[in-house]
Amino acid sequence: MSRVEAFSDGVLAIAVTLLVFDIGVPSPLAHASLGHALAERWPHFVAYAVSFLTIGVIWINHHITLRRLATVDHTLLVLNLLLLMIVALLPWSTSLMATYLRESQGQHLAAAIYAGSFLAMSCVFYALHHHSLVRRPHVLTPQLGEAERRAIKRRNLTGLPPYVVATAAAPLSSYLTLAICGAVAVYYALPTRSS
Amino acid sequence: MSRVEAFSDGVLAIAVTLLVFDIGVPSPLAHASLGHALAERWPHFVAYAVSFLTIGVIWINHHITLRRLATVDHTLLVLNLLLLMIVALLPWSTSLMATYLRESQGQHLAAAIYAGSFLAMSCVFYALHHHSLVRRPHVLTPQLGEAERRAIKRRNLTGLPPYVVATAAAPLSSYLTLAICGAVAVYYALPTRSS
Amino acid sequence: MSRVEAFSDGVLAIAVTLLVFDIGVPSPLAHASLGHALAERWPHFVAYAVSFLTIGVIWINHHITLRRLATVDHTLLVLNLLLLMIVALLPWSTSLMATYLRESQGQHLAAAIYAGSFLAMSCVFYALHHHSLVRRPHVLTPQLGEAERRAIKRRNLTGLPPYVVATAAAPLSSYLTLAICGAVAVYYALPTRSS
Amino acid sequence: MSRVEAFSDGVLAIAVTLLVFDIGVPSPLAHASLGHALAERWPHFVAYAVSFLTIGVIWINHHITLRRLATVDHTLLVLNLLLLMIVALLPWSTSLMATYLRESQGQHLAAAIYAGSFLAMSCVFYALHHHSLVRRPHVLTPQLGEAERRAIKRRNLTGLPPYVVATAAAPLSSYLTLAICGAVAVYYALPTRSS
Repeated sequence: MSRVEAFSDGVLAIAVTLLVFDIGVPSPLAHASLGHALAERWPHFVAYAVSFLTIGVIWINHHITLRRLATVDHTLLVLNLLLLMIVALLPWSTSLMATYLRESQGQHLAAAIYAGSFLAMSCVFYALHHHSLVRRPHVLTPQLGEAERRAIKRRNLTGLPPYVVATAAAPLSSYLTLAICGAVAVYYALPTRSS
Repeated sequence: MSRVEAFSDGVLAIAVTLLVFDIGVPSPLAHASLGHALAERWPHFVAYAVSFLTIGVIWINHHITLRRLATVDHTLLVLNLLLLMIVALLPWSTSLMATYLRESQGQHLAAAIYAGSFLAMSCVFYALHHHSLVRRPHVLTPQLGEAERRAIKRRNLTGLPPYVVATAAAPLSSYLTLAICGAVAVYYALPTRSS
Repeated sequence: MSRVEAFSDGVLAIAVTLLVFDIGVPSPLAHASLGHALAERWPHFVAYAVSFLTIGVIWINHHITLRRLATVDHTLLVLNLLLLMIVALLPWSTSLMATYLRESQGQHLAAAIYAGSFLAMSCVFYALHHHSLVRRPHVLTPQLGEAERRAIKRRNLTGLPPYVVATAAAPLSSYLTLAICGAVAVYYALPTRSS
Repeated sequence: MSRVEAFSDGVLAIAVTLLVFDIGVPSPLAHASLGHALAERWPHFVAYAVSFLTIGVIWINHHITLRRLATVDHTLLVLNLLLLMIVALLPWSTSLMATYLRESQGQHLAAAIYAGSFLAMSCVFYALHHHSLVRRPHVLTPQLGEAERRAIKRRNLTGLPPYVVATAAAPLSSYLTLAICGAVAVYYALPTRSS
């Protein structure tokens, strides 16, 4: 059990820390003013914050989910691996989003990939929950009642629609997609949510 | 014991997360269409998935192997270090494979290095097993019977031939090599294998 | 508890190790002499040492802070996430500082961002302390007396003014800002401070 | 205690995994033959192996050293931080060494920095040992006798001369320096050394 957490924490911590590489230091020679050059890079700062917060919230939820399990089976290990495979892609999709946000060409596709990768992550996370809550409830510690298990599944399902909307909004506006993803991250980070 | 796992998990988690650097964000100026530019990079996406899954399966097996040991000796630490040295090379061999897959020159060598690094990894893993199961069986916890130890060794040996074939296929076709490596990863990840 | 530490340690360890990417290997073709090329890069070596020591001291304090807590709530997890979000930015602000230290344009802004990111980090760390010591003192282990809690808070507050001064000094001289940040790091690392 | 190990393992694991970035994938366009391009990069492969093995051996020794301590004081934390600061530099010094090994200009300085960073690492490691064995022997677990403590210190001291020789050999030949560093790493990895 603890090694699944250690490996997952490792990948999550590395993915979240690699996000910084996307920001980049403007070349002193290429710009008239550092302030102007940094202001121009605002999509990279916003995308950094949104992705960092999103991965952080995923980490918190991952934490809670694995704490409920007494043992892990092969299916859960592989589902967890799929989850990490998508998380490890996020520094790339974040960089893609930030690079193309204001481009006339590619901005919609980049936004769709950005929100789509969050959606895929949420889907795999839901599958991981489903497997542990429905198909192998006997490994839960402590044993959860039927009602509680259903409540957890419902709470997890509610995480999907915002990312469906964010992905669907990509053809309209990449800014809207980024705003929705940011709002979701802030909503889950807000202290009012008792966990 | 736990620090061997922590260090190994660290290297495995970092190697797997660094794979993403190979994908790269196409420059907005260099391409007519982002969709086209990404489609052209498909070998990098496929190589990412194959290598991620392979390292993930290695992590699962590594997990199971170390869990059987009560103590570690110097030889096992060094064999483990050799294993990690090859795993840490995989982001490089993956990038090499993806970059040269469709090149008229270098594709066969790149494919041979890619499958060959998986083969070398499996060989060191087998040596690590051999050392712990045959030469120091007294440190196993719980004590495994002769039959069980032989079964584990046999199961480990069956992991080698596919990579021998994949490496041998490199002079024929780099695509075939990649396909075999991908099939091996998917096979070991499939939920039918009870671990 | 232990996973908060594991994730935090992961981000801190990665951020501190990524600092090395800023130094860079001079191209053999571009320089008349390697010695000269390295000597010219002194701001990168100094910034590496100052940032490494600062993150290291933050790690030591983080260690002590979390050891006092028996459980963590959602607010503490999010405050910790904000802390890590700033720490993960430090390889970038360090590189910015080192790149612009001697530039006629941008040096003051880069220095302000460098010291400002340390200041922001200290502020979030103070908020994390405040939350755990004042708002949720019942989760402390062992229970600290009112006087001791106040002493810890006071000691934490004394960490803020030096970074306020360092940030305020940025418009005067980027060298002064770097010197103050370095002095703070060395002061906290000195063995005379009993912890 | 365990967090010192976790943070140290993190930095060691990351530093060792970042070594791979130095190897680099040759551009398909820039070279007539991939085989030739890779053969030309042999110093990067050799330096990778030597540095990986050296950091691995340091990790094994670090493991043994920290296992002896019941508690850590501020001085030991800072000495450990200095050790990690040098270890985190090794991907840079390794890249410098590999890049300049065959250059007519800079090869001696690069070799001196490479071996010198190993020497500095060994010196800080010795100081860490000295502090824990001589100045705070009461925190050792189990209590070691005077003779045993002296034997450990002597064994640690014998690690320094080879790196003094390797650094001193740099003005003569960068190849000799690399060979000595490699021989030291292989010597300590050899299974004959009972640990």
